[in-house]
Amino acid sequence: MSAFSRFTSLAASLPSSVPFVGPEAIERNRKLAVKARIGANESGFGPAPSVLEAIRQAATETWMYADPENFELREALAIHHGISRDNIAIGNGVDGLLGEIVRLVVEPGTPVVTSLGGYPTFNYHVKGFGGRLETTPYLDDHENLDGLLDLVKKENAPLVYFANPDNPMGSWWDASEVLTFAKALPDTCLLVLDEAYCETAPESAVPSVRAIIGMPNVLRMRTFSKAYGLAGARVGYAIGTLGNAQAFDKIRNHFGMPRVSVAAAMAALKDQAYLRDVVKRIANARERISTIARQNGLSPLPSATNFVAIDCHKDATYAKSIVDGLMDHGVFIRMPGVEPLNRCIRVSAAPDDKLDLFADALPKVLKALG
Amino acid sequence: MSAFSRFTSLAASLPSSVPFVGPEAIERNRKLAVKARIGANESGFGPAPSVLEAIRQAATETWMYADPENFELREALAIHHGISRDNIAIGNGVDGLLGEIVRLVVEPGTPVVTSLGGYPTFNYHVKGFGGRLETTPYLDDHENLDGLLDLVKKENAPLVYFANPDNPMGSWWDASEVLTFAKALPDTCLLVLDEAYCETAPESAVPSVRAIIGMPNVLRMRTFSKAYGLAGARVGYAIGTLGNAQAFDKIRNHFGMPRVSVAAAMAALKDQAYLRDVVKRIANARERISTIARQNGLSPLPSATNFVAIDCHKDATYAKSIVDGLMDHGVFIRMPGVEPLNRCIRVSAAPDDKLDLFADALPKVLKALG
Repeated sequence: MSAFSRFTSLAASLPSSVPFVGPEAIERNRKLAVKARIGANESGFGPAPSVLEAIRQAATETWMYADPENFELREALAIHHGISRDNIAIGNGVDGLLGEIVRLVVEPGTPVVTSLGGYPTFNYHVKGFGGRLETTPYLDDHENLDGLLDLVKKENAPLVYFANPDNPMGSWWDASEVLTFAKALPDTCLLVLDEAYCETAPESAVPSVRAIIGMPNVLRMRTFSKAYGLAGARVGYAIGTLGNAQAFDKIRNHFGMPRVSVAAAMAALKDQAYLRDVVKRIANARERISTIARQNGLSPLPSATNFVAIDCHKDATYAKSIVDGLMDHGVFIRMPGVEPLNRCIRVSAAPDDKLDLFADALPKVLKALG
Repeated sequence: MSAFSRFTSLAASLPSSVPFVGPEAIERNRKLAVKARIGANESGFGPAPSVLEAIRQAATETWMYADPENFELREALAIHHGISRDNIAIGNGVDGLLGEIVRLVVEPGTPVVTSLGGYPTFNYHVKGFGGRLETTPYLDDHENLDGLLDLVKKENAPLVYFANPDNPMGSWWDASEVLTFAKALPDTCLLVLDEAYCETAPESAVPSVRAIIGMPNVLRMRTFSKAYGLAGARVGYAIGTLGNAQAFDKIRNHFGMPRVSVAAAMAALKDQAYLRDVVKRIANARERISTIARQNGLSPLPSATNFVAIDCHKDATYAKSIVDGLMDHGVFIRMPGVEPLNRCIRVSAAPDDKLDLFADALPKVLKALG
C-alpha cells in the first residue's frame, strides 16, 4: 500500500469505501452495457431545454471561478422561496452539504440518529468524522418518527437525519407530522430534513418554508439533482436560520462550485413550467413502473419520489438476484441495503423507451429465477 | 444569529470567512464593473475550442451523476504521466483536495508548516481542522526550503505545504532542489507539493513524475484551473503512491465531481497542442505585464506562473492603494497578504485587450497616488 505513516488515527481506521457502486463500475466489472439507467434516481427526462442552452452559453465562462458567495443563485432561491438569501447555503449537492453538516456537529464518539436502512451517504459522512450511528428500524416502510425522537432523547444526540419523502422506500409523512416531529425534538438536536425529492411529493407532504425557517435546530436540504434533472451538476442547497446558513462559511470550499453548474441551476429554477411538466411525467412513469410490477406479481409501494420501491415478497437474496438478472439485460436498478427493506427492488422513473426495457426484461428474469 | 447550539467547539470557534474575496463581491460592494479580470490567476485565454465543444456536447449528460471512480479521467491522466491510474485521486480542484489532505492528517493542535504568506486556502483548511500553523518567511521572494525543513523537524510536523512554482510570488526552485528537499524530509512528514502552475514553468523546475512516485510522504497537486483555462470546472488531481491515492476514498464526496467538468478535463488533456500554444501566449503576456511595470517605474519579479508579482518599492498601504485604484478603472488585480511580500501587486496573464486596460490605468493610478 505504501501509504503515509501519520494519517490521523481516525483516518487510518476508515476503509476506502464508496456509499454506492456506480453503474459505470458495474459495466466495467461485469463487462455489460447499461441500456436503461434507472437505478440511481437520476431523471432520465433530463433538465429543461432552456437549461441545456444555459449550459452551452456558460461554457465560455468556464475559465472563471464561480462567485464564492453564490450571490445570484442564493438571491434567486430566496425569491423563489420567499425568504432571505442569508437563509441559504449552496453546496456540491445534498451529499456535499451533508458532509459539511456532519463536520460541524460530529466529533469522534458523537451519537447520531438515523433510520436503519436510511441514506447511506449520510452514514458514510458520520463514520468519516468518527460519529457513532444509532438507528431505529422503519415502521411499515416509513421512517419511524417516534422511534427517531426516542432515540435522540435516549442518546442525547446532537444530530438526526430524516428524509421526507424517503429514499429508498419512497414513503412520506404529511407536513403536519413533520412539523410535530421537528418541534418535539430537543433544541440540542439538529434535524437534517432531507427534501431531495420534495418536488415530486404531494403538496401536503412538504411543510411551508416559512413554517420552519426560524428554528435554529432544523436544516432543510434541497437539490437540483432529482426533479430538475441535474444530478451531474452537483448543486444543492440548505435552508435554515441566518446563523446556520453562515456556519457553512466556516468550513466550506468557497471556490468549490462549478460555474456551468451554477448557471444550469439558475436556468432550471427559472423554468418552473418545465418542472411542472416533468413532475407529471415522473408521476406517469411511477404509475407505469407500478403497473409493470403488478403484471409480474410484485407489489409496488406508494411513492412520493422519482422512483418506486417494489416488494418482491421474498428475501434479500431473491431481490438481489432480480437486480443482477436485470443487469444481464442492460437494466440498471438498485435495492435497499438492510432488512426488511431489502425484500424490495427500487426502480427510477424514466422515459417510456427505458421502461420498455424494464418491462421486457423483468418477466424473463423472474421466470429464470423460478 | 440564531445558530444551532451544539456545533463542535472547534466549529463554534471558527469565523465565517473566505480565503479570498471574489471579484463579484467587489463589484457588488463598490458598485463597479470589472472590465479586466486579471487578479485571480484564471486564464483569460480560456480553454481550448475543443474543450468548449466537449462541454456543449456533455450538456445532455448532465442528468447523470459522474462515475464516482473517475475511471476514465484517471486512466487518461495515467497514460499522460506514464503512471498507473491507481496513483491518481481526483477532486474539486486543488482547493478541494487540500481540504481532504488536511482532514486526513490534521487534528486539533497538530502542527503544520508552510511559508509566511503562502497559499491562504491551505491555511484556511488547516485552521478549519484545528491545526496549528507554523510558518517560515520567504527568502528573497522564494519559499525558504531550508527554513521549511528546519521547522518541520523542530515541530515534528506531519504536514508541510510547498508550492512550486510559488503563488503569490511566481518564483520557483529547480527540480533538483525540490527533490533534495523532498528526500530530506523525515518520512513522518507529508509534503504537499502544489504544482498548480507547473505547466507554465521551465521544464527544469518540475521533477519528473517518476522521480517522486514511490515516496509515501509526497503528494503532488495538479489542476485544470490554470494553464488549461478551466478554473470554473473545479477539476484537480493528486499524484502519489497507491496507498495515498486510495486514502482519499476514505473521506471524499464520491459523487462530487460534475459530469460536464470531467468531460471538459478529458478534452483539455487531449488537446496538448492548445496547451503548448496557450503556454506561449501566457509567456508573452508575462513579458508584456513586466514591460508595463517597468515603464511605470515598478519592478516585475521573474515568474514561472501565469501571473507576475510586481515590486512597487514601497509598503503594503501603497500597494493596496494601487489595487484599489486600478479597480476604480475596472481593473481587478490582487496582492500578497503579508510582509515583505505585500510591497508587491500581482497581475494575471491575459489577452492584450485586457492588458491594454491595465497599461492605460496604471500610470493614472500611480500619478494620483503621487
